[in-house]
Amino acid sequence: MSGRSVLVLNGPNLNLLGKREPSVYGHETLADVEAACRTLAGELGLDLAFRQSNAEHQLIDWIHEARETVAGIAINPAGYSHTSVAIMDALAAFPGPIIEVHISNIHRRESFRHHSYVSHVAAGVICGCGTEGYLLALRRLHTLIGSAS
Amino acid sequence: MSGRSVLVLNGPNLNLLGKREPSVYGHETLADVEAACRTLAGELGLDLAFRQSNAEHQLIDWIHEARETVAGIAINPAGYSHTSVAIMDALAAFPGPIIEVHISNIHRRESFRHHSYVSHVAAGVICGCGTEGYLLALRRLHTLIGSAS
Amino acid sequence: MSGRSVLVLNGPNLNLLGKREPSVYGHETLADVEAACRTLAGELGLDLAFRQSNAEHQLIDWIHEARETVAGIAINPAGYSHTSVAIMDALAAFPGPIIEVHISNIHRRESFRHHSYVSHVAAGVICGCGTEGYLLALRRLHTLIGSAS
Amino acid sequence: MSGRSVLVLNGPNLNLLGKREPSVYGHETLADVEAACRTLAGELGLDLAFRQSNAEHQLIDWIHEARETVAGIAINPAGYSHTSVAIMDALAAFPGPIIEVHISNIHRRESFRHHSYVSHVAAGVICGCGTEGYLLALRRLHTLIGSAS
Amino acid sequence: MSGRSVLVLNGPNLNLLGKREPSVYGHETLADVEAACRTLAGELGLDLAFRQSNAEHQLIDWIHEARETVAGIAINPAGYSHTSVAIMDALAAFPGPIIEVHISNIHRRESFRHHSYVSHVAAGVICGCGTEGYLLALRRLHTLIGSAS
Amino acid sequence: MSGRSVLVLNGPNLNLLGKREPSVYGHETLADVEAACRTLAGELGLDLAFRQSNAEHQLIDWIHEARETVAGIAINPAGYSHTSVAIMDALAAFPGPIIEVHISNIHRRESFRHHSYVSHVAAGVICGCGTEGYLLALRRLHTLIGSAS
Amino acid sequence: MSGRSVLVLNGPNLNLLGKREPSVYGHETLADVEAACRTLAGELGLDLAFRQSNAEHQLIDWIHEARETVAGIAINPAGYSHTSVAIMDALAAFPGPIIEVHISNIHRRESFRHHSYVSHVAAGVICGCGTEGYLLALRRLHTLIGSAS
Amino acid sequence: MSGRSVLVLNGPNLNLLGKREPSVYGHETLADVEAACRTLAGELGLDLAFRQSNAEHQLIDWIHEARETVAGIAINPAGYSHTSVAIMDALAAFPGPIIEVHISNIHRRESFRHHSYVSHVAAGVICGCGTEGYLLALRRLHTLIGSAS
Amino acid sequence: MSGRSVLVLNGPNLNLLGKREPSVYGHETLADVEAACRTLAGELGLDLAFRQSNAEHQLIDWIHEARETVAGIAINPAGYSHTSVAIMDALAAFPGPIIEVHISNIHRRESFRHHSYVSHVAAGVICGCGTEGYLLALRRLHTLIGSAS
Amino acid sequence: MSGRSVLVLNGPNLNLLGKREPSVYGHETLADVEAACRTLAGELGLDLAFRQSNAEHQLIDWIHEARETVAGIAINPAGYSHTSVAIMDALAAFPGPIIEVHISNIHRRESFRHHSYVSHVAAGVICGCGTEGYLLALRRLHTLIGSAS
Amino acid sequence: MSGRSVLVLNGPNLNLLGKREPSVYGHETLADVEAACRTLAGELGLDLAFRQSNAEHQLIDWIHEARETVAGIAINPAGYSHTSVAIMDALAAFPGPIIEVHISNIHRRESFRHHSYVSHVAAGVICGCGTEGYLLALRRLHTLIGSAS
Amino acid sequence: MSGRSVLVLNGPNLNLLGKREPSVYGHETLADVEAACRTLAGELGLDLAFRQSNAEHQLIDWIHEARETVAGIAINPAGYSHTSVAIMDALAAFPGPIIEVHISNIHRRESFRHHSYVSHVAAGVICGCGTEGYLLALRRLHTLIGSAS
Repeated sequence: MSGRSVLVLNGPNLNLLGKREPSVYGHETLADVEAACRTLAGELGLDLAFRQSNAEHQLIDWIHEARETVAGIAINPAGYSHTSVAIMDALAAFPGPIIEVHISNIHRRESFRHHSYVSHVAAGVICGCGTEGYLLALRRLHTLIGSAS
Repeated sequence: MSGRSVLVLNGPNLNLLGKREPSVYGHETLADVEAACRTLAGELGLDLAFRQSNAEHQLIDWIHEARETVAGIAINPAGYSHTSVAIMDALAAFPGPIIEVHISNIHRRESFRHHSYVSHVAAGVICGCGTEGYLLALRRLHTLIGSAS
Repeated sequence: MSGRSVLVLNGPNLNLLGKREPSVYGHETLADVEAACRTLAGELGLDLAFRQSNAEHQLIDWIHEARETVAGIAINPAGYSHTSVAIMDALAAFPGPIIEVHISNIHRRESFRHHSYVSHVAAGVICGCGTEGYLLALRRLHTLIGSAS
Repeated sequence: MSGRSVLVLNGPNLNLLGKREPSVYGHETLADVEAACRTLAGELGLDLAFRQSNAEHQLIDWIHEARETVAGIAINPAGYSHTSVAIMDALAAFPGPIIEVHISNIHRRESFRHHSYVSHVAAGVICGCGTEGYLLALRRLHTLIGSAS
Repeated sequence: MSGRSVLVLNGPNLNLLGKREPSVYGHETLADVEAACRTLAGELGLDLAFRQSNAEHQLIDWIHEARETVAGIAINPAGYSHTSVAIMDALAAFPGPIIEVHISNIHRRESFRHHSYVSHVAAGVICGCGTEGYLLALRRLHTLIGSAS
Repeated sequence: MSGRSVLVLNGPNLNLLGKREPSVYGHETLADVEAACRTLAGELGLDLAFRQSNAEHQLIDWIHEARETVAGIAINPAGYSHTSVAIMDALAAFPGPIIEVHISNIHRRESFRHHSYVSHVAAGVICGCGTEGYLLALRRLHTLIGSAS
Repeated sequence: MSGRSVLVLNGPNLNLLGKREPSVYGHETLADVEAACRTLAGELGLDLAFRQSNAEHQLIDWIHEARETVAGIAINPAGYSHTSVAIMDALAAFPGPIIEVHISNIHRRESFRHHSYVSHVAAGVICGCGTEGYLLALRRLHTLIGSAS
Repeated sequence: MSGRSVLVLNGPNLNLLGKREPSVYGHETLADVEAACRTLAGELGLDLAFRQSNAEHQLIDWIHEARETVAGIAINPAGYSHTSVAIMDALAAFPGPIIEVHISNIHRRESFRHHSYVSHVAAGVICGCGTEGYLLALRRLHTLIGSAS
Repeated sequence: MSGRSVLVLNGPNLNLLGKREPSVYGHETLADVEAACRTLAGELGLDLAFRQSNAEHQLIDWIHEARETVAGIAINPAGYSHTSVAIMDALAAFPGPIIEVHISNIHRRESFRHHSYVSHVAAGVICGCGTEGYLLALRRLHTLIGSAS
Repeated sequence: MSGRSVLVLNGPNLNLLGKREPSVYGHETLADVEAACRTLAGELGLDLAFRQSNAEHQLIDWIHEARETVAGIAINPAGYSHTSVAIMDALAAFPGPIIEVHISNIHRRESFRHHSYVSHVAAGVICGCGTEGYLLALRRLHTLIGSAS
Repeated sequence: MSGRSVLVLNGPNLNLLGKREPSVYGHETLADVEAACRTLAGELGLDLAFRQSNAEHQLIDWIHEARETVAGIAINPAGYSHTSVAIMDALAAFPGPIIEVHISNIHRRESFRHHSYVSHVAAGVICGCGTEGYLLALRRLHTLIGSAS
Repeated sequence: MSGRSVLVLNGPNLNLLGKREPSVYGHETLADVEAACRTLAGELGLDLAFRQSNAEHQLIDWIHEARETVAGIAINPAGYSHTSVAIMDALAAFPGPIIEVHISNIHRRESFRHHSYVSHVAAGVICGCGTEGYLLALRRLHTLIGSAS
């Protein structure tokens, strides 16, 4: 694993970010988020991989690969947060720190969004901080990777 | 979007229609259903796309594409009705009307089939009308598209 | 029973249709709905009886009578959907097909509206298709009566 | 269908077997399990197909194909056990016997692992017998196929 | 009140007895039941009133009248058993003994039939004894009225 | 609607008031309550209609009529509080203020009395104030009607 | 099996009948109940065995023996009603009719007494009829045995 | 205790009344409410103490003191309604009548507001009558104190 | 303890195996099962004790004795699976491996059979494999005892 | 009854005390506990009977006998605490005081151990005080017997 | 910490002990309890601090101070038992043994009193032993402190 | 309000930070956290108030004051998160942004910690990021205050 590499994973429908329900998710696109993450990663001296998929198995495969290649994961599991034991199990097999991100405050939305399987295996959870949540997650990963090395 | 285009989406296992559990689902195949839909669409002056996939992400991708290309969606989410927040979220980002179809009356089957995430975002739900439910859904979409244009 | 007769039953408060909560139920009155049903019944060659009552027992009595006189029932049980085992039991004793209609999508309203006793005994359920739902129900009854005779 | 063919299906994350959480799942890899299965299948005179996928739809597709080609299925659905109605529906359309396998005793783990949709359609369930559970499942399939032919 | 008068009340759909679901309710009609009750009442020296209504309010009114005129009530509340607090309240205001009768064993049917509001106020409950349950209820009322006078 | 008219509605079994369970409901009869209401209505300059029925549909019909004729409703739904979606729906279609009254404190009685459908649509709820609750409700309606005109 | 033999079984603590909680169970002893049963059995032409045990396994053993020797069982399972799947399973293996008896109305007592496993397999249930419930049960068994022979 | 003294207690955040969420609570301040209460108390011949605290223990202490000094309590427990067994216990030790007041109709708000511990020990509950609820409570206390002395 | 001894325990009603509900449990008797177990135990070099009791305490006593005398236990707790904390506690005090066996797939039967206390303390669970489940359990015990010695 | 006699009852598996799960239950044997109880009973002037059984019916029989012979009961129902309505019913028929003892703090163990039927009928409950809990129970019985005589 | 010091903490409303609900709590005052505790503490050689507060934060502060000054805590958390995670957290930070005391048997009172947060962190729980429960708790603390030093 | 002022509030037991359960909360004290916050606030140009109280009412009072004096609040409600509607209501009356902080990941702890009333009114929630969570919260507040001014 690269001690300075972090992976940012994005789950289903996040490719539409900025295009759907802007009252909930804001106007920034996922490319905007990636750009902001790359800027901060540069400042923090982190190598960044940034990916999105609508496919549960693709996310699982990327998490498996990450076991060998990255030091920490920030993940916005979106709709799979609430339904995927398989992603949770994949993350449980990742040895480094995991920070879960939700753009909106899931505790103020429908009740089925209040529970996240990913929270069972994440070190930390950041929700309702908009897309800035990704940046806060990177800062936390930076601390955890630093303190672990 | 084409103001006269509708998309009919079919979820997992519907490729087996007519081949499994005929006592529940009848003897018509999905090709039969598609043919009947095409006939009615022709009568109603609708352009029809008709697709099936066993993959949740494929359904999500088709729904995303539909944002630009079709005016309404009829969807039989089959087994994903009860488990996929991700498909619900994709449909929530579709601006046109959505009609949910179930061939059987899901309220008379196992209790876990009584709840559908798709019903949270569908305009209407038609269940237990056999494969004729697809045709009824097309009629309703025709009304909604017409009244919206 | 007359092989071409259908009964359309309307439950409590539907006499106010078009007058209450138009944002939920629209502006059409029950007389408008009846007229549209009569037109379609004529096209389909069906004899139509169309009734409304606020009284649970009146609905039960009509269902009992229908055992001898009609081939199929479309019913919008309104508020009794969620509370009347007695109407469910009456319908269970009706030998022909039953289609349940709800003007609004009951699955997007208060949780106590998500369950309908009538759905236990109906062949099909059509909800959230506005007053067009009555017409879709007649089409389905037409198919079922035809295929049964 | 080949009367002596059995399919062993493995769900998400089982490609990591022996590499993750060895205190729960042991040190054997999936290749080790496959080898042991092949040995026993040879002894029992069974043709064996052995597959793993992290993708729900891939598992569904394989189950569909199996309708024509194999006599019985042993499946370890892993994380999809608890969340996939779609896999359950696919298995329900398989005409031969199905044995469900879990390496760990799922009834001693988190409560969300206590329920498996696959158990609704499996003939038998073997859990907590480690990877030997696969071999016990093959023995049971051998009996069932034999008694059915 | 007449010390030897008993009222047998029958709730909704019991007018169809012997005509609907004979596998559940048998082939006897309500007139048959009434005749059997009259015969036994004669033997026991009881005056018998025997009534049926599909209307909740009619049952309530009869219970109110019974406060002045009868010594005990046997009631088969049918579908209202499970839903009518109003009938329960009316019975609670009746000073004499009440025996609840169900022809079928409600504990072996759908779960919503397992609870009866009437059981909260009845002295005794007899279910699953077929129409003979009415006769057993008369015997019990006979004992209770006798022991109270 | 008459801007100074109020309707007081009484549900099932309240015709027995003062005659049943005096330890719960006291010794006043419904006629006593009506007299007290008429006296206060006179003082407040309100026209008063005061009605009772054991029939759910009669209550619904009166509520429907009230849409044209009265400015506010005080209702003691009694046993229908807990079971009637139909009365709730009728009240929801009434444009003026609604005050719900219960003579006893329903929150100290059986748990099935703790929930009232009517409370979903009432402006205010007064319970456990004995029959004085009717007078308090009239005072509140007087304020609401005055402030609305 | 003797076509005229019936077994009356009594569960735990019923040996204390008449000695504990007389306000709930009355003053008759189990010997009194047996005597009354014997008298009625004589009238009805039934052979009667009457037994009590505090031991679950003893009751199970007696039920097993009854498979060969008696035509019907009346059982008051007392405290085992609510907790013994084993007794339920034993009764399920008995080919003749079973009537369950409870002296008190269990639906008016603690909520854990509202459910009885025995009710799942009994033909009929009689509760709250005091010790007369045994006699009513014998009458019902008499009918069922007679109609079955 | 003074036979004409009443205590009006206000719980947490009511010091902000008229300043927060006016769409829920209106524009009157707590001083306005106190003034209206004092005017009515004067008319009714009651001595009035009127207090507010954000501290649970302060409310408890005032209730304890009230045991010696006042004849009745009107209390708006605000947020402590739903969470404080300790306040409920303190009120249970108060010998005079207690009326609970909520400005808004708590049954139309979040589900955790539907249950109030205080309702277990209050004689009456008045909710959803705005700040006039305080005045209605005083009228009810006046009646109860009068009838008790 | 004898390192090659295993105990097979059978719970209530299993003495009737092959005689009751053959559609669920098959036609083999418990003696047949014992014979098959003895044959396999011979092949595997295991000493076998095979016992059945309808008495919970007898099963507990045998489990206690087994602490000194056997290396592993296979247990079919039958109806006690779902109700006996005492048997679970006894098994928890047994130092060797425990395999739970159910002849039928308990997850496809009544919901109260889905939970087994014994599963909390068993190493493995085999259900729905018919009486072959006993043989699979012996094979697993053989592996566990071997690997432990 | 002897006014100075107390019975200490021990439920299933307590014969293994000191031999199983010492981290939960400590190293003292039941004989040690009995000895300590005898010493304290001597100091307090109490006659002591001390018994253990794994059989539910034996415990019930001893409780029945105790009605005539002892003044108070201390009982550690062990696994039967959570499942035996029959023991609860037997204890309810005992006229003297009952103290329930649990060696461990059952509220910190599995959730099914949090509820005890025995607590419904015990005067006091002492748990988590180790085997000293027996001595504390004897002290409490001593007080209660003394104050009752 | 002083190895012989113990703190007895009393929660809300216990200052009224002996003055409220004597049928539940008896006639002794808290001063009586303190005196009895001081006498026993003297016998046992313990230093005793004895405090009561209606304020949750005051109890928390005292528990914090106790970390430095006392060897064990006996606490009757009264109404805060059921609602205060904060007190539970404070106790969790106390290094010595904690015994929870309830004067009444909380398991025989309202269901919301059956759960105590304090029980999660207490070593032992004594309830329903009246005020003698304090003395039993001191005895247990004496044992635990002695065995720990 | 000062547009650059932020308030950091700490709930009960956080005064012990670094002293209790370091495996859960780490070794930093609250003074360490305050120092780190002051450093970052300086960098961000924010005025910082930093407070802790064990008293619910003190926290409420500070939140009320903050309505006039600060632009945003970061709050770690600790044990009151899960139990205080009153704090939630106070925060709901604060017009600026609120960020909730938990040092540990509350979703991996006891189930009663999974729900926070404060999350209903917070803009964002950061948990499981250790004491760095405070710094992340300040960054988010900085963004929100900046974007709001």
